[in-house]
Amino acid sequence: MSSETLKATAELEVHDVFNQWLKAARAKDVDAIMTCYADDIVAYDAILQLQFKGAQAYGQHWRNCMEMCGGDGIFEPAEPTIHADASVAFLHCLVRCGGEQDGVVQTSWMRGTQCYVKRGGQWKIIHEHFSAPFDVESNKALFDLQP
Amino acid sequence: MSSETLKATAELEVHDVFNQWLKAARAKDVDAIMTCYADDIVAYDAILQLQFKGAQAYGQHWRNCMEMCGGDGIFEPAEPTIHADASVAFLHCLVRCGGEQDGVVQTSWMRGTQCYVKRGGQWKIIHEHFSAPFDVESNKALFDLQP
Repeated sequence: MSSETLKATAELEVHDVFNQWLKAARAKDVDAIMTCYADDIVAYDAILQLQFKGAQAYGQHWRNCMEMCGGDGIFEPAEPTIHADASVAFLHCLVRCGGEQDGVVQTSWMRGTQCYVKRGGQWKIIHEHFSAPFDVESNKALFDLQP
Repeated sequence: MSSETLKATAELEVHDVFNQWLKAARAKDVDAIMTCYADDIVAYDAILQLQFKGAQAYGQHWRNCMEMCGGDGIFEPAEPTIHADASVAFLHCLVRCGGEQDGVVQTSWMRGTQCYVKRGGQWKIIHEHFSAPFDVESNKALFDLQP
């Protein structure tokens, strides 16, 4: 396989895992979400802690987050960009995220980066970074920004 | 070169670029910082905007940030983790960041992810993500968290 074909194939494979992750996140299926992660994931999530180390800690955080938000999960990515080689890849995109709170759908644009490694023929997310930028005067997260 | 040797070499090369970036950030040398980035970088920074697209926009943002902070730049990474293959790599770490404001040194722990591609024999950062997590009650950035 040529280097370019190998990269194009790897990008498609990573895109497939991203689509599985999206489908699982929308369905609030934490077990299915967790199949996308490596056991030794290090995650920087948008809220609460600097980092979550390992699939067990991050899975518990996902469960807590799912309980916080009512209704269906909203995860709408804008133009995911993927770079992949034989065994290392990353993906970034803006994501319109949210859920239903007191019967009102609330969403905001967040930033997402997922870093992948291929192990035993399977791509797994070994590092994930989600965030919202904050305002330098109020120090508050900026939820009203538009791409 | 074996696959493992190739990866180990690539990790060392990426670590070198990260050290150049750190040295330039500490020296507040924006021109030197910018040599680490690809022209088509997409950056998600901790403040102000969802994203900065392209080296020109991101360079201007770096200059604005440097003017905001007095004194020497403080960038102290904690245990950077690198995964690299022949032409794609990523690095993540917590970073104690700050500067001097009104004669007082202020720092907080942030999260940093840098994604690299190798082009023409040179590793360049093509995607960068910096952030602080926020509190879900106050929506304020959490500056007092410790690793």
